[in-house]
Amino acid sequence: MTTVAALSQRSVKQILFMTFAVAAIGSLMVPEPFAFGQTTGDDSSPIFGVKIPSGYRQWDLIAPSREAGSFDELRSILGNAISMKAYRDGALPFPDGSMLVKLAWKEVPSAEFDGAFVPGHTTTVQVMVKDSKKYASTGGWGFGRFIDGKAVDQAQHETCFGCHQANVKDHDYVFTRFAP
Amino acid sequence: MTTVAALSQRSVKQILFMTFAVAAIGSLMVPEPFAFGQTTGDDSSPIFGVKIPSGYRQWDLIAPSREAGSFDELRSILGNAISMKAYRDGALPFPDGSMLVKLAWKEVPSAEFDGAFVPGHTTTVQVMVKDSKKYASTGGWGFGRFIDGKAVDQAQHETCFGCHQANVKDHDYVFTRFAP
Repeated sequence: MTTVAALSQRSVKQILFMTFAVAAIGSLMVPEPFAFGQTTGDDSSPIFGVKIPSGYRQWDLIAPSREAGSFDELRSILGNAISMKAYRDGALPFPDGSMLVKLAWKEVPSAEFDGAFVPGHTTTVQVMVKDSKKYASTGGWGFGRFIDGKAVDQAQHETCFGCHQANVKDHDYVFTRFAP
Repeated sequence: MTTVAALSQRSVKQILFMTFAVAAIGSLMVPEPFAFGQTTGDDSSPIFGVKIPSGYRQWDLIAPSREAGSFDELRSILGNAISMKAYRDGALPFPDGSMLVKLAWKEVPSAEFDGAFVPGHTTTVQVMVKDSKKYASTGGWGFGRFIDGKAVDQAQHETCFGCHQANVKDHDYVFTRFAP
């Protein structure tokens, strides 16, 4: 899949020239993504104590996204009512009680329409919960990353805020924008 | 599009053998994507009389998808309550009243995270409405494709059912599967 996703960024002619080489080395070069890291066996995240919120799969869609490279994932980010009101009002920072859930699946080619890619197996579910007091040291956000309903290990959770802080501090530490 | 659709029926190996031919004639044969077609100026689709349903942006997410190639789009398919019940029950055919909406955006690289791609500008909104009597001649489905809220022309709507019939007849003419 990594091979196919990478190729999708290139022209048809380039695909022809690269296909054999990529096929030959692809399986050796691609590291295991985070999605296959260690889990804690707990349904509550280390450091933050964040759980997967009930009913999140019925929340509104904020936007889809895609991660190329070794992740090779299609993603959808959903928001609870409090966060969606903030999105619609264009109001930052997000108020306490805002929750965002990112669902991620491996991207696989559609068997039914050439050139289309669809969700394969689920990789991670990732959660952000706004509580400006409880999570004051991490921008007001608590984080949780889950595989098959179980939180991944502390080392991975130690990376969450640093990345959000480095890249999207001016959007209240949230990457996703609403896609109308 | 005819060329691309035809390839979907073939294996990866066949695609490799055919790529040279397609590349050679592609620029002559492949029209601008549908998303840039003529609109009717009407908010109701030709042939089917389908409109963009109110409140659809708050419907549940069925799944995301991506179209590579000239489309170069991220997509999200949402379903109304009737269709979501059918998805959750695994019940086919979809009951009358089922409605699906596919939102499509140009895929653009994230300016904030290397390797991530996010929605750019909106291209089309596409709608399927189940009414087994009204749309008996098209598998029970009425179709609508919209750009900026206006339906595209009749010629484009004449292609909807043929493609769904050719590729996903056994899934009640619906491409999208629920992504858990």
